[in-house]
Amino acid sequence: MVSAPLPARAREADSKARLRLWIRLLRASRLIEGVARERLKAQFNATLPRFDVMAALDRKPDGMLMSEISRFLMVSNGNVTGIVDRLVGDGLAVRSQRNGDRRTSFISLTRKGRAAFAQMAAAHEVWVNELFGALSARDAEQLSAKLKSFRSDWESEA
Amino acid sequence: MVSAPLPARAREADSKARLRLWIRLLRASRLIEGVARERLKAQFNATLPRFDVMAALDRKPDGMLMSEISRFLMVSNGNVTGIVDRLVGDGLAVRSQRNGDRRTSFISLTRKGRAAFAQMAAAHEVWVNELFGALSARDAEQLSAKLKSFRSDWESEA
Repeated sequence: MVSAPLPARAREADSKARLRLWIRLLRASRLIEGVARERLKAQFNATLPRFDVMAALDRKPDGMLMSEISRFLMVSNGNVTGIVDRLVGDGLAVRSQRNGDRRTSFISLTRKGRAAFAQMAAAHEVWVNELFGALSARDAEQLSAKLKSFRSDWESEA
Repeated sequence: MVSAPLPARAREADSKARLRLWIRLLRASRLIEGVARERLKAQFNATLPRFDVMAALDRKPDGMLMSEISRFLMVSNGNVTGIVDRLVGDGLAVRSQRNGDRRTSFISLTRKGRAAFAQMAAAHEVWVNELFGALSARDAEQLSAKLKSFRSDWESEA
């Protein structure tokens, strides 16, 4: 029987291990996103992208440019514009100018927006803990560290 | 200074560790999906959902029901219908009846579809290995095992 030399087979096994990890990671994140999407809709009448935009804004009390929100969320500017328009319409966010620059506007959450986000974020944390309940906090920290280390390596390419 | 009793603070730290893991996992999967999406478009003029549907079909040479494809991918039936229509139009997939049941059709890849998918899958495996390059195969296997163990616990709820 002719077979590949050992180093090549080992590389192939490594390659398959990483591919398997990626498929699991993707399935896990899609499943959790699905749960979050359903519950945000049922309990807060909110979409997942709206929650994501509010989460981004909540971290920056001084406001964010549209382009910053998009980059943070890795979605198109077009999507973010519609979401921000609705948040502003609902009184949850405001647009403001800074340093007399009238061309660019900064978006930030209103007090009402921060309160609304705090409620959703607390519920979201409970769901995540329920879904990740089988993982010890130590496991969670180890996984986080591994994901962080690999990410920084190719962050600039993405 | 009044502070929460230790057990409550420990639970809160555990909760934050799991939340941090979820946010990292989500960011990692979105970043990788973004790279895959761009390259599939540039190199194969294919979308990520099209690749996902072909990947599902490639695993089942005997064909899949539309509902099976949707469940596997965790997307709506409506999306899958459009993708399958285009695959059939491009000669990459076929619809067929089984056991004389004319109401339900099974979708499977054609020989041309399998060949096209094989090319994309090989490129995709190279990209994933490039992006996960900083993770050793052992790390990848450990991460996969952890993600598998937690998933099976709540799979039925999702």
